[in-house]
Amino acid sequence: MRAAVINDWQLRVDDIPVPTPGPGQVLAKVLACGICGSDLHLLQHGREQREIGAKLNEGLPVDPMGMQMFVPEHDMVMGHEFCCEVVEVGPDCNNLKQGDVIVSMPVAFDATGLHGIGFSNKYPGGYAELMVLNEMMGIKVPNGLSVDLAALTEPLAVGVHAVAKSKIHAGESAIVMGLGPVGLACVAELKMRSIGPVIAADFSPKRRALAEALGADVVVDPRQISAIDAWRAEDGVRPLVIFEAVGVPGMINEAMRVAPRNTRILVVGACMQQDLMYPMLGIGKELNIQFVLGYEPGEFNDALTAIADGRVDLAPWITGRVSIDEVPQAFADLGNPEAHAKILVKPG
Amino acid sequence: MRAAVINDWQLRVDDIPVPTPGPGQVLAKVLACGICGSDLHLLQHGREQREIGAKLNEGLPVDPMGMQMFVPEHDMVMGHEFCCEVVEVGPDCNNLKQGDVIVSMPVAFDATGLHGIGFSNKYPGGYAELMVLNEMMGIKVPNGLSVDLAALTEPLAVGVHAVAKSKIHAGESAIVMGLGPVGLACVAELKMRSIGPVIAADFSPKRRALAEALGADVVVDPRQISAIDAWRAEDGVRPLVIFEAVGVPGMINEAMRVAPRNTRILVVGACMQQDLMYPMLGIGKELNIQFVLGYEPGEFNDALTAIADGRVDLAPWITGRVSIDEVPQAFADLGNPEAHAKILVKPG
Repeated sequence: MRAAVINDWQLRVDDIPVPTPGPGQVLAKVLACGICGSDLHLLQHGREQREIGAKLNEGLPVDPMGMQMFVPEHDMVMGHEFCCEVVEVGPDCNNLKQGDVIVSMPVAFDATGLHGIGFSNKYPGGYAELMVLNEMMGIKVPNGLSVDLAALTEPLAVGVHAVAKSKIHAGESAIVMGLGPVGLACVAELKMRSIGPVIAADFSPKRRALAEALGADVVVDPRQISAIDAWRAEDGVRPLVIFEAVGVPGMINEAMRVAPRNTRILVVGACMQQDLMYPMLGIGKELNIQFVLGYEPGEFNDALTAIADGRVDLAPWITGRVSIDEVPQAFADLGNPEAHAKILVKPG
Repeated sequence: MRAAVINDWQLRVDDIPVPTPGPGQVLAKVLACGICGSDLHLLQHGREQREIGAKLNEGLPVDPMGMQMFVPEHDMVMGHEFCCEVVEVGPDCNNLKQGDVIVSMPVAFDATGLHGIGFSNKYPGGYAELMVLNEMMGIKVPNGLSVDLAALTEPLAVGVHAVAKSKIHAGESAIVMGLGPVGLACVAELKMRSIGPVIAADFSPKRRALAEALGADVVVDPRQISAIDAWRAEDGVRPLVIFEAVGVPGMINEAMRVAPRNTRILVVGACMQQDLMYPMLGIGKELNIQFVLGYEPGEFNDALTAIADGRVDLAPWITGRVSIDEVPQAFADLGNPEAHAKILVKPG
């Protein structure tokens, strides 16, 4: 089958073997798969990140619940934001059947352990024609929901989870720094929960427009007014939660610097490098920093339901559709925030 | 009156004017005042800390609730862990009277604002013969409690607050890294709440013995076994809260590095310098970092009550008693953790 393959931190398009579903698994045809910024990051900084990670975890026991790590020098297919159609049912399946359109958390399990789909040498992700999924993880896409919107379940779930972890509630306010898909997902979930005001900040007019469409109360260009100044002008009194969704060094410290007393800072942007901070900024104001990653099954399901019920319109996120052969070019194109928010790979 | 005075980041012993109590204030004779590690730190690193603080807070509005900042080039008397006897009652007082033995949160207020006692050019702290306190902040020391133990109310309150902020509860476990008075106060409060196991770590045998006397379940020398390895050997399954009470650069990152998934890290040690961290350590394990400072009035009162009721025995903390003239030498002596935990200034 055709696939965009990463090997030794290089991306190529190639023909690779079709995977075989084991007991309790299905073979599914990829209908749509979003390209995630973390995949671009993995390609560019994966090697360095591995080295840092190995050094940091030296001497620590391996988490027995953790995912199998992929071997960088073997083929690996990324893509963890997918919507598929079941084409073949493996042994011991009794829920899904051929033709079912499903989404799934990007996790597979078998006798060899737990595998991150899109981060595994064994389980190809959605930048390929076909993939193997555990039947148990599949959720049927509600009738009438487009496969392209269904593929946005995963990135929205990231926001659902981050907002849940923040424990934000009515009467509190929020700043979202950085309006890539993760920041936008936070804005979407905050407004679905009727939190306000939500101040959203990004350098890109295109991304600010997307945040506005999701209901952000104030959107700002940080070159003109900082998010915290905009928050002070709009509110300035409600307890504040800052969602840091930029993920580059210095942003956590900047959030700490501008945060009022008792602010919770949610780190949703994934900075992979070494970062600096001044603890005295946190101490003096008794700040709380919550790091977040991923989502829980219920949150993934909630994200799908919110899209299917029309409680949130994510259609404007989709700024491009490409074939598998076009994936390398799409990776390059995503560098421009004016041109793109979410590009879907459409193998069909 | 005799006082240990700091001016332009230099400590000297001198005669300074006796302060005058205003409306709602009393003049009190210092009976005992603990020397806090943060005072040593302020003397050594205060200038640099000011410069960093000014740079970090550039362009931010001043917190209207914040304390008045002291002017470093004017005289200032430190000492915020005190027990006093009222010697003169100012106008508009109706609760305290001459001879009352009291403790107080180190905060004074008047028409010019809020002042940190021991960090104010206007309100001398407890390294002096006399001080002015707001009647409203004074708590009478229960009959029979020694003034030396009452002076430990303030450092114990720091631990009471940190543990409260951690929201730790029965069924969870704790590591306390660093067993200076702040770390010891955390151990004391954790054991008063019957949390266990509590793993306490410090290089100093003397400080480990103090933690053991407070009921720490396991005390370790990190040169022999790390706190996290000791926790794994002793427990390894209960949710974990790590109290970082060392307060030097690198400790927050080290706590993040060894922490299991979902651990809460309480930053109670005050690192004043720039620090580094790898956000990916926090992200991958969804860690939470809570910075803490000070205490609330109820917590201060709880600390006094716990000492007075004999629920905690802090007598072993007191390793020295000095006159005001001996304060500079005591500052030097406190550098040796084998010799000292808490030195009390006894002006009388």
